[in-house]
Amino acid sequence: MKVILLDYTGEPELTVAAAARLCYSPSTPEELHGQLTPEEVKRLIEMIFKLGHLSVFEHASFTFGIEGISRVTSHQLVRHRIASYSQQSQRYVNLSNRENFVLPASVKESGLVKEVKEHFERAAKLYEQLVEVGVPVEDARFVLPQAITTNIIVTMNARELHHFFRLRLCRRAQWEIREMAARMLFEAVKVAPVLFFKAGPSCYSQGRCSEGKMSCGRIVNSQEEIFREFNLK
Amino acid sequence: MKVILLDYTGEPELTVAAAARLCYSPSTPEELHGQLTPEEVKRLIEMIFKLGHLSVFEHASFTFGIEGISRVTSHQLVRHRIASYSQQSQRYVNLSNRENFVLPASVKESGLVKEVKEHFERAAKLYEQLVEVGVPVEDARFVLPQAITTNIIVTMNARELHHFFRLRLCRRAQWEIREMAARMLFEAVKVAPVLFFKAGPSCYSQGRCSEGKMSCGRIVNSQEEIFREFNLK
Amino acid sequence: MKVILLDYTGEPELTVAAAARLCYSPSTPEELHGQLTPEEVKRLIEMIFKLGHLSVFEHASFTFGIEGISRVTSHQLVRHRIASYSQQSQRYVNLSNRENFVLPASVKESGLVKEVKEHFERAAKLYEQLVEVGVPVEDARFVLPQAITTNIIVTMNARELHHFFRLRLCRRAQWEIREMAARMLFEAVKVAPVLFFKAGPSCYSQGRCSEGKMSCGRIVNSQEEIFREFNLK
Amino acid sequence: MKVILLDYTGEPELTVAAAARLCYSPSTPEELHGQLTPEEVKRLIEMIFKLGHLSVFEHASFTFGIEGISRVTSHQLVRHRIASYSQQSQRYVNLSNRENFVLPASVKESGLVKEVKEHFERAAKLYEQLVEVGVPVEDARFVLPQAITTNIIVTMNARELHHFFRLRLCRRAQWEIREMAARMLFEAVKVAPVLFFKAGPSCYSQGRCSEGKMSCGRIVNSQEEIFREFNLK
Repeated sequence: MKVILLDYTGEPELTVAAAARLCYSPSTPEELHGQLTPEEVKRLIEMIFKLGHLSVFEHASFTFGIEGISRVTSHQLVRHRIASYSQQSQRYVNLSNRENFVLPASVKESGLVKEVKEHFERAAKLYEQLVEVGVPVEDARFVLPQAITTNIIVTMNARELHHFFRLRLCRRAQWEIREMAARMLFEAVKVAPVLFFKAGPSCYSQGRCSEGKMSCGRIVNSQEEIFREFNLK
Repeated sequence: MKVILLDYTGEPELTVAAAARLCYSPSTPEELHGQLTPEEVKRLIEMIFKLGHLSVFEHASFTFGIEGISRVTSHQLVRHRIASYSQQSQRYVNLSNRENFVLPASVKESGLVKEVKEHFERAAKLYEQLVEVGVPVEDARFVLPQAITTNIIVTMNARELHHFFRLRLCRRAQWEIREMAARMLFEAVKVAPVLFFKAGPSCYSQGRCSEGKMSCGRIVNSQEEIFREFNLK
Repeated sequence: MKVILLDYTGEPELTVAAAARLCYSPSTPEELHGQLTPEEVKRLIEMIFKLGHLSVFEHASFTFGIEGISRVTSHQLVRHRIASYSQQSQRYVNLSNRENFVLPASVKESGLVKEVKEHFERAAKLYEQLVEVGVPVEDARFVLPQAITTNIIVTMNARELHHFFRLRLCRRAQWEIREMAARMLFEAVKVAPVLFFKAGPSCYSQGRCSEGKMSCGRIVNSQEEIFREFNLK
Repeated sequence: MKVILLDYTGEPELTVAAAARLCYSPSTPEELHGQLTPEEVKRLIEMIFKLGHLSVFEHASFTFGIEGISRVTSHQLVRHRIASYSQQSQRYVNLSNRENFVLPASVKESGLVKEVKEHFERAAKLYEQLVEVGVPVEDARFVLPQAITTNIIVTMNARELHHFFRLRLCRRAQWEIREMAARMLFEAVKVAPVLFFKAGPSCYSQGRCSEGKMSCGRIVNSQEEIFREFNLK
């Protein structure tokens, strides 16, 4: 899996802070955007986060390029509806000679990894045979395991990203989307450290677990903990 | 595949028509909802459709129960963001002894159908073996072909349904989602015939193909044509 | 102000409960919708609410007819984006001889109520004069005070309604939209008492105030408290 | 009225074009974003527009600062739900000594302009009196005419902007929101000329009027026509 930050709103933190000020100020957007100092930006964003008035976070958008996640995970990802997606189409792209499959750690340790790898190879072979005899790629893909990888470009605004990180960085989330979320956060904090300072699972961002009886019982105290877990540095 | 209409807004056509009248009337919602005759409802809905002021169609919602579509198709379906979904979870439901796979017609006619069926059986078997040795079902599913079936409950409002039918009943849509859309329309017109009278692919609903050079070159003249194609009666 | 429930999803609680079960069950939508008992429906909905998995609440929609709120309040209302609105148009409806204005309690008690009422009357008169000399109603309305009333039809699903009630039934919400929300809740609980049992401001629905330092310091313990405040019975 | 472009996605056209290519390509997001030439970007965006596959336009966002529009127009604006808004609050900002009112051209020419201006002044005075005797500003505003100005920051993605321009640059749109839309387009084409080349009313962007019998009968042939009308250069 590879996650890069392709593009984003030019000055995400300044723009968010100006929008936050506008609501309570007689000043114009132009004045606010032109005059806020970095200290004021930081103070405003921290205050907004504390008050929970996250709608102003929507003015900053982030576009990620994601490579090599399974269709299992892309199916989960696109359930987030306040986002924009462009995904490599299995209806149009011929996957012959390109198949790559995601192998879960639990499968690697299952004693059945050889069987699973052979299964993936047979599936890839069968796909190619089907395409060769004239089956459209959109139908041949029915034989491909859900582990098959895909590429996708995702745009979310900072409010939705906070929501996404809260759900998907929780230890109860599926491991692959959790790794993807960790990589997204790792890229996002580089360019907008104030905006994403408190982004993370509920235990970190809200200071309390939201999972009730299903809680994993462990608290995340910093984003670094998450990054370390996935060797991100 | 089975599609049923599980539930819907009590009086979808009356409510839509009352909303349409409200915009241009000094009367109250209560008066309009209480007084419109079936003839007025029909006339109002036809006029709205002609003017393209489809926002009033949003007041009527329809909930479908869909059984036995492939994950290929559910992945496409959930890309429609103005809708609500509840889908059978492959993280939690053990699919052992239950696997059903969708077999595309092109595969059936490919001369490789025996190989494909054996592949599906081997995948099902491998899934069960993985689960038996302790791999979580959320990981075992990585070996299942995308043809694996799923169940999903979908709610869309009538405006989004019109949009969905326009895209997905087009002959250029993927065949499985097209069949699903046809079955949804078949159920919807039974309970709201006026509201969905003009629902269908662009060639039928708009009177012109929207596919440009990619056009199939054939015009759909009635919903019955679509229903006949899928043996719906 | 008058609020009525115009229409809603036929069996809102059964449909929501069936959707909740589907996610964790090998059963089909049809089986679940056909077999759940009222006790199971109640238990499922209460469990969902506790777990916070509110997406299944989206399958139930409610359409309200609202009469006689000010444009101050309708402007706030339509800021809720996950909803559908049809509003009486000031571009097309001639408001001559119909003007009604909302008078806030604080204004009534201000000692200036006579001046305010005369101001409203002068505004209404000026509007009529402008229309008489040929100014389009869409321009004449610029002179009308924001207290001018409007009618609107609103559809929200039960998830968004819970969110709406949480924000707008809080004592820190503006008084007019708060009354409107109270009237909406009063109607909703009549037809879907289980679904809306825990709907209300954070202090009631979540068991804790979300307003931090801005808290009013008073806890709402039951929906009846809210209804009593607005004389709803 | 003043409209400025406060911020936007760093390389909006490149990002949109890379997303468009990704759907039909075995290449990764990183490769596409790194390799597309300006000519390819232009060709891809023009092709997308022709095919109507506008979802990729969502990856580019634009944030506008808008100053001095009436609350009549802001009420219309916020009805566009696929957008983010931060608006100067009349609940918190004291408008004493700041009132500015929008005067429609038809009112200026009505022979009643003196009466209207006096009405605005009286309203402003009454507002100040109410605030002085202790009425909260959120209630005092009920006396302010809808012509009162407001400031708002708006973020829309390029797909929604295209939709917004189609509706609001039509001659049948209300004149004030039409001017606002023209100013927004004028700013947007400066930084993303390819992306917004075909943005405008239906007659310009689609090559056909969408208003049926309500058509104004005049065709817009270029964006310059629109800009000239509002003296934008």
